[in-house]
Amino acid sequence: MQQSIIESIWSDYEMICESRPLVHNITNLVVTNFSANALLALGASPLMSHAPEELEEIIGISNALVINIGTLDIQQIDSMKLAVGFANEKKIPIVIDPVGAGASALRTETALALIKNAHRSIVKGNGGEILALANQQIQSKGVDSLYDPSDAIPAAQSLISEFDVEAIAISGPEDVVVDATTCTIHANGSCMMPAITGMGCILTAITGAFSAVSETPYTAARNAVSLVSIAGEMAARKSQGPGSFLPHFLDQLYTIKQADLTGRLNVREAS
Amino acid sequence: MQQSIIESIWSDYEMICESRPLVHNITNLVVTNFSANALLALGASPLMSHAPEELEEIIGISNALVINIGTLDIQQIDSMKLAVGFANEKKIPIVIDPVGAGASALRTETALALIKNAHRSIVKGNGGEILALANQQIQSKGVDSLYDPSDAIPAAQSLISEFDVEAIAISGPEDVVVDATTCTIHANGSCMMPAITGMGCILTAITGAFSAVSETPYTAARNAVSLVSIAGEMAARKSQGPGSFLPHFLDQLYTIKQADLTGRLNVREAS
Amino acid sequence: MQQSIIESIWSDYEMICESRPLVHNITNLVVTNFSANALLALGASPLMSHAPEELEEIIGISNALVINIGTLDIQQIDSMKLAVGFANEKKIPIVIDPVGAGASALRTETALALIKNAHRSIVKGNGGEILALANQQIQSKGVDSLYDPSDAIPAAQSLISEFDVEAIAISGPEDVVVDATTCTIHANGSCMMPAITGMGCILTAITGAFSAVSETPYTAARNAVSLVSIAGEMAARKSQGPGSFLPHFLDQLYTIKQADLTGRLNVREAS
Repeated sequence: MQQSIIESIWSDYEMICESRPLVHNITNLVVTNFSANALLALGASPLMSHAPEELEEIIGISNALVINIGTLDIQQIDSMKLAVGFANEKKIPIVIDPVGAGASALRTETALALIKNAHRSIVKGNGGEILALANQQIQSKGVDSLYDPSDAIPAAQSLISEFDVEAIAISGPEDVVVDATTCTIHANGSCMMPAITGMGCILTAITGAFSAVSETPYTAARNAVSLVSIAGEMAARKSQGPGSFLPHFLDQLYTIKQADLTGRLNVREAS
Repeated sequence: MQQSIIESIWSDYEMICESRPLVHNITNLVVTNFSANALLALGASPLMSHAPEELEEIIGISNALVINIGTLDIQQIDSMKLAVGFANEKKIPIVIDPVGAGASALRTETALALIKNAHRSIVKGNGGEILALANQQIQSKGVDSLYDPSDAIPAAQSLISEFDVEAIAISGPEDVVVDATTCTIHANGSCMMPAITGMGCILTAITGAFSAVSETPYTAARNAVSLVSIAGEMAARKSQGPGSFLPHFLDQLYTIKQADLTGRLNVREAS
Repeated sequence: MQQSIIESIWSDYEMICESRPLVHNITNLVVTNFSANALLALGASPLMSHAPEELEEIIGISNALVINIGTLDIQQIDSMKLAVGFANEKKIPIVIDPVGAGASALRTETALALIKNAHRSIVKGNGGEILALANQQIQSKGVDSLYDPSDAIPAAQSLISEFDVEAIAISGPEDVVVDATTCTIHANGSCMMPAITGMGCILTAITGAFSAVSETPYTAARNAVSLVSIAGEMAARKSQGPGSFLPHFLDQLYTIKQADLTGRLNVREAS
């Protein structure tokens, strides 16, 4: 199983480098720069834009749309909804990160509205966010999760059956990737990663790049989770703390080799 | 004196790591990412949000509010005023950074309005900003200060007696921390720190984390000033310039030990 | 030729360190922090502000204005137009970066409107952007260029003769600097630079600092292009990827010596 996943990750990674998919992001103010740098280090072509007047043209040349509600406001929500509509028309993949769903009604409702509007989407959230979207009462601590990704698997499955969500990545100490028929648990990564802001948002952005080239939404999410967590694991080993992690992580995305995945990738099917 | 301050800093630092206070920031566009990373490296839990529709809920789960007017606009000012009101109701600490007060009427007036609205606050500014808030004519060079922090001590004391300001940190080559009864001068830090954007804003954000756990507003400001300037001093010694300073500084916040403070801390009472 | 340019770069560099020109930026959300840090590392004094209520006062104390439309929206466009008007009155240099011109009508029209409003300006764009501004049909891939800077020289010359544009820098694998009488081709830099977001925007910001001290708009653009590309070349040699490039690049801006330019600078007149 590990070997076929490695080949799939690597095939996608090379296709991203060759085709340089244009990934359009409407994202939060904390990770704007880091997202663009991570996409560039991977080989994709990032674009950040939120003006309603240009979204149709910009999405007309884009290969994927990434929406992240981390620092949402009413004007940005309008842009996000408009962008999802144009992405539907253009039939490009849509990746949605419901940052902080459950922490405020505005976040939960906005995330659900975007998911309902999208004709197809991949959702990336932490355990608490996925539970909140599935309408479960949760305890919230802002944008961090108090829940294990595994506890959110039924919630993710119900979102997939209820909406046009094709795959969900649940990030946490172990990540989970779910679609209508498969559920895998990913044990890569490093405990240093939650000490860097926006590592989850970076996974979302990179899922956008994979979604432009990957075979299925599930493989896009799975391959992005695997690559980001292995690059993070390798970066953490070279780092003295979250500050030195940042340059090492971008360097890893840029220089990673197929051989780096072998012996590291740790995926299992959920029992 | 140094030893009792070190014990107080360390007790707060450990309490931040254990309780992970949620620090809500409405801050400027330059330091959004750096502030979140500095708070995470320290062990706190940062949250950035400015939508009026969710501020009551978000502040309802927060342990401190940090307001920084560095790239203010009318909409953001409305959010800041609303946030201060909710923080008053919730009785959580409020830390205000009047970036650029004195450089424009908008900045001076906004900072004063926020300080007047806050039922309690800690203010962090440079010498020029504190003088401007105390209604003294100053020469301005944007967001940098042309004034020595010591020259602003009387201005800080008058702000404390006039408004519900409980403590003021004045940043500069030597930092000053003032409350109604005490005034200390802090001689840590590095001359490389002004070559990195937002080091003052980072001190403000970290003061927010300390204010959630510290004994008094004065100790919160004093302990934050001490920790940031010693971490900066240690990072500068390892750095070739402001670029390498940044990762070293975040690493220091993450890995600093109580022993690092001993022999370095340099605080004296103002004469 | 190289030696006289090196002396001109170094004279400007030292004048920036001594006079610390205040460079006011209305820039995009991706590079806000990086621009401020690059300007500080160079020795200039950056200021970011976009509120219409304070632009007159802020520009009143500024030595140069930098406008970058990378993540423009209607409100920001209003601020940019207002800022250009105040900079005209104050007679300070204006540097305009038409990020993504050609990718949307909003970007092309906004960039042209700003250029028309400016009584004098330096424009920094990539090949595609300069061609788009000269009203030539281009193929667009978002904010990246599919065109060689040399192909855009006639377009740059026509912009200079048609509008009050005094000099244009066209960034790419080889950079081109053009004014009404001169056209130089600059062969410094590193192929790692396009893997970092906003390197072009950083060149624009640094051109702003040079424009405040340099002899002519052309020398400001030429000296900024030379310094940024040589600092980038030196940083790339020390880097494992785009992540480690970032701290090395800022360190180089901070520590570069005149001797670093000798033997590296590679400028020729366009044939």
